Amino acid sequence: MHTSKSETLNIPTIGVVRSTFADAAGTPIQPSFSNKTCSGQIELFKEYEAGLKDLDGFSHIAVFYLFHKITESKLVVTPFLDKRPHGIFATRSPARPSRLGFSVLPLLQVVENVLHVSHLDILDGTPVLDIKPFVPEFDVPREPVSIGWYETRALADGTTIDDGRFLPSKK
Amino acid sequence: MHTSKSETLNIPTIGVVRSTFADAAGTPIQPSFSNKTCSGQIELFKEYEAGLKDLDGFSHIAVFYLFHKITESKLVVTPFLDKRPHGIFATRSPARPSRLGFSVLPLLQVVENVLHVSHLDILDGTPVLDIKPFVPEFDVPREPVSIGWYETRALADGTTIDDGRFLPSKK
Repeated sequence: MHTSKSETLNIPTIGVVRSTFADAAGTPIQPSFSNKTCSGQIELFKEYEAGLKDLDGFSHIAVFYLFHKITESKLVVTPFLDKRPHGIFATRSPARPSRLGFSVLPLLQVVENVLHVSHLDILDGTPVLDIKPFVPEFDVPREPVSIGWYETRALADGTTIDDGRFLPSKK
Repeated sequence: MHTSKSETLNIPTIGVVRSTFADAAGTPIQPSFSNKTCSGQIELFKEYEAGLKDLDGFSHIAVFYLFHKITESKLVVTPFLDKRPHGIFATRSPARPSRLGFSVLPLLQVVENVLHVSHLDILDGTPVLDIKPFVPEFDVPREPVSIGWYETRALADGTTIDDGRFLPSKK
């Protein structure tokens, strides 16, 4: 009755990221560690262009993509921002079972099928699965937020720039 | 050189949602329209349990899932909250090409492989693709946010509860 095993879903890509970051090593690990000069494009495939109608009224978009350079997932990782190991679902590390990435980015302009964005933390060539408008009423809790191990991560000497540790060659 | 066509990605599920919402019709359309009595579970498959280490320190999680009842995507939709049609990527409607859903939920408790959450807006039996900790520094822009057509949606007589309009029988 209840599914109790992992199954594989088939999900279509809607576009691809064009950014100046060709390699994981050296790429900001979050939009908040990137900046407005790190601009790039999300190029939707032409067949999806009609789905962008009215998106230009939004200042920010949530981008859903695949960490396509990841070849192996890990359940416990030492993330960029800490020295201590944590469960993969308690981190934002790319080496996750789904390889699913998520970034909230400023939307600068929509030109036909191309979204111009800044604060990029996404590799060039990354497959994009979905774009949603960022709406604080939906996406930001009203209650106080606590952030677990991130609270004390300033005590560790973490990095805000990818050092390539999750690439296949660094296993 | 550049990918210019949609491809299909294979993404494993990590678990399933247990909620009191058996049907799309009647389900809150966002966590902000749900409430703390709408609690339920995200049941991870046992093989992924180790990935939950230290997640219990976080008050909120971002849940990535599949709108599994959707059988057809639309590029232009009239969303629940408006009377006017908008591009699917400018809405949070489920009838999207990826069928990807996203909800930020309060995390009440982690018991072995089960996450207890509230403010559910997700159907019972929904396949879960990923769980990430919600971290305001990453997920909430510092700049002012503008929300396009949502700004004026109060002028329309929208609904905050799913009326089943995106189900196959309501095409």
